[in-house]
Amino acid sequence: MSSFSIGVDLGGTNLRIAAYTRASGLLETILLPTRLAAGRHAVVEDICSGIGKLLQTWSPQFELTGIGIGTPGPLELPAGRLHSPPNLPGWDGFGLREEIETALSMPVIVESDANVAALAECVLGSGRTLGLDSLCMLTLGTGIGNGIILHGKIWHGVNGMAGEAGHVTIYPDGPSCGCGSNGCLEMFASATAVRRIALEAAESGNAPGIAALAKRNPEFTPRELSDLAEKGDEGAKQIFGDVGRALGIGIADLINTLNLPLYVVGGGLANAWDLFSPALFAEVRHRSYVYRLTEPGSHVLNGGANHGTRIVAAELGADSGLLGACILPYTAKTEKHGTALSS
Amino acid sequence: MSSFSIGVDLGGTNLRIAAYTRASGLLETILLPTRLAAGRHAVVEDICSGIGKLLQTWSPQFELTGIGIGTPGPLELPAGRLHSPPNLPGWDGFGLREEIETALSMPVIVESDANVAALAECVLGSGRTLGLDSLCMLTLGTGIGNGIILHGKIWHGVNGMAGEAGHVTIYPDGPSCGCGSNGCLEMFASATAVRRIALEAAESGNAPGIAALAKRNPEFTPRELSDLAEKGDEGAKQIFGDVGRALGIGIADLINTLNLPLYVVGGGLANAWDLFSPALFAEVRHRSYVYRLTEPGSHVLNGGANHGTRIVAAELGADSGLLGACILPYTAKTEKHGTALSS
Repeated sequence: MSSFSIGVDLGGTNLRIAAYTRASGLLETILLPTRLAAGRHAVVEDICSGIGKLLQTWSPQFELTGIGIGTPGPLELPAGRLHSPPNLPGWDGFGLREEIETALSMPVIVESDANVAALAECVLGSGRTLGLDSLCMLTLGTGIGNGIILHGKIWHGVNGMAGEAGHVTIYPDGPSCGCGSNGCLEMFASATAVRRIALEAAESGNAPGIAALAKRNPEFTPRELSDLAEKGDEGAKQIFGDVGRALGIGIADLINTLNLPLYVVGGGLANAWDLFSPALFAEVRHRSYVYRLTEPGSHVLNGGANHGTRIVAAELGADSGLLGACILPYTAKTEKHGTALSS
Repeated sequence: MSSFSIGVDLGGTNLRIAAYTRASGLLETILLPTRLAAGRHAVVEDICSGIGKLLQTWSPQFELTGIGIGTPGPLELPAGRLHSPPNLPGWDGFGLREEIETALSMPVIVESDANVAALAECVLGSGRTLGLDSLCMLTLGTGIGNGIILHGKIWHGVNGMAGEAGHVTIYPDGPSCGCGSNGCLEMFASATAVRRIALEAAESGNAPGIAALAKRNPEFTPRELSDLAEKGDEGAKQIFGDVGRALGIGIADLINTLNLPLYVVGGGLANAWDLFSPALFAEVRHRSYVYRLTEPGSHVLNGGANHGTRIVAAELGADSGLLGACILPYTAKTEKHGTALSS
C-alpha cells in the first residue's frame, strides 16, 4: 500500500487542507475561509473536520504518513505555540499543535508558513531544478517570510524562531515596523511596503503616473503598479528599483553570514522579478565579496559544479505553502522533529 | 598512549605554533614573527619547521591526533586556498593547505582564524561555561571576524565562506570598507574603526578629551580611549555607545536570522564590554522580537533551561586562535572535514 499525507495551509484569510501523494501530488484540496471572527477553536474545528474528511476518503487506498500544518508565526518549537502572530489576532499564546493533536487524537507536525514554503521550494521547486538541498527563501507578501533549509530539512534555531530575516535592519532610521524595530526589510520590500511607498510617491507630486493609478483605484495592487512600471512609468520603475536595492542589502547580509548555495525570492511580489532583480543583483555584488567570488561565471573558485551562489525567483507559486505542509511528514521521517537546531 | 595535537595561529604579525593535550592544555608554544616580507614560502617553512620541532619533542610521549591551522581569510574550502586576504598581502590564490601538506607529507586542517576562535570559545570558553554547543562569535580586532559553531562544529557554508558577518551592512550609506561595500559592521565596531571615529571626533572640535589624547599620543590605542571613557569623558563614552549600537544592529540581524542560543563578542575591543554593552543590549531589544521573546528572564518561552538567547563577552583572550587551532583535530575526528555545510 503506497503512502499519502495531509497538509494544512492556515492563512489569515484562507484555510486549505489537502491530501497528497509523492507520485500524484495534490489528490484533493478543501478550501475554506479562515473563520477568525468565530474564534480560534472554530478554526481548529474546521481544520480537524477537513482532515477527518480527507482521512475517510483516502485512507482506504493509501497508508497515512503524517499530517503537516503550516501556520503564520511566530511559532515556538518544540511547543508548537504561537506568540502574538500579526496575521492571527487573538491567538497569542495559543498551543496550536496541542489543540489539534487533542482534537484528532493523532500527532501532527506544525511549522511556520515561511518555513514550509521554503521546504516546498527546496524539495519540489528551484532546489530540485538546480540539484541543491540547501537554500534561504524570502517570501514577499503582506510581510516578508523567511525560511532556511539545510540539507533538505528546516532549520529551526533553538526556539523554532530562525528565519526572521524579514526583520533584518536595512535602514536603521527607517519607518517603524510592526515588530517594534525600525527600517526592517519588510518595510521596503513587502507588498504592503510597495503600496505604502507608492502612495507616498503619489502624494509627493513627483510620480504623476502612480497618482493617476491611485485616483482611478485607491485599492490598487502591487501587480497594477508593476504593470505601470512595465509600460515605462518612471515613478513606478523607481519603486521597484528601491525594492531591489533593499532586497539586495538583505540578501548580501544573508550570503555573507550563511554562504548557502541558493537564495530564493517568492511570494506575490516576486512576479515583479524582472523589474527589481537588476537592482538586487547590483546591490548584492556591491555588498558581498563572498557573492563576487562565488557568483555563477566568476571562475574564481574551482570547486566545480553547484559550488557557488545562486539567487533566483521561486518556481512554485501560491501552492508552495500547501505543498510544503504536505511534504513535511515525509521530510520529518528521517529527523527527530522539533529539537533545537535540527539541521 | 594518550594523544596530543599541534595548532598553528598564523597572524599578519605573529606566528604561534603549539603542542596541546586535552588534559594539560598548551604543552609548549613557539612564538615567531610572521616573515611576510620574506614571502609566503618562507612563512610556510617557518610553520613546518616549528611543527617538526614539536613533533620531535612530543611524539615520543603522545600519539598525534592531527595538526590544525588558523589563518586570516577569506579561505576557500575544501580547497584550503586564500582569496585576497587583507592581512596577508601577496597571498591571493595561495593554496595554503596543499603547500603545508606537501612540505610535511602529512594531512593538516586549515580554517579561518575567526572560525577557530569561535570553536575555542565554544569548546573551552563561554560555550562550556553555559553548557551550550552552538554559538555565533564576533571578534573585534583590526577587522571583525565571525565564526558560527553548530553542535560543536564549525559551520562552513558551501565554499567555506560562512561567517563574514563583519561585513553585514549597518548603515547603507556609511564609509567605504576594504571589502568593496559601504557601511559594514567592521567600519563601526572594529579597533580600527574606533580609532578612525575618535580621530574624526577630535578633529571636529567637539571632543576635547580625545583631542588631548591624540595630541599626547597620535598612535593612541582603543584601550587608551576606553580608559578615557571610564574616567567619564563624554566624547569617548559616546564613541563606545555608537560601537554598541552598531554591534546591536548586527547582532539583532544574526538573532533574527539564526536563533542561536549564544552570541559572543571577543577580540581586543571586547575589553570595553562594560562601555559598549548597555547600548548593544538596548539596540538588540529594540530590533529583535526574537530576542525579546527569548532573553534570559523574559519568561515568555517555556522551553526550560538553556532555551533562550544569551549575548556575552568572550571568556578566552588572545589565546583563543591558538587554542582553537589545537582543538581542530579533535572536533574534526567525528566529521568529514571540509565538505559543504558540515554542520
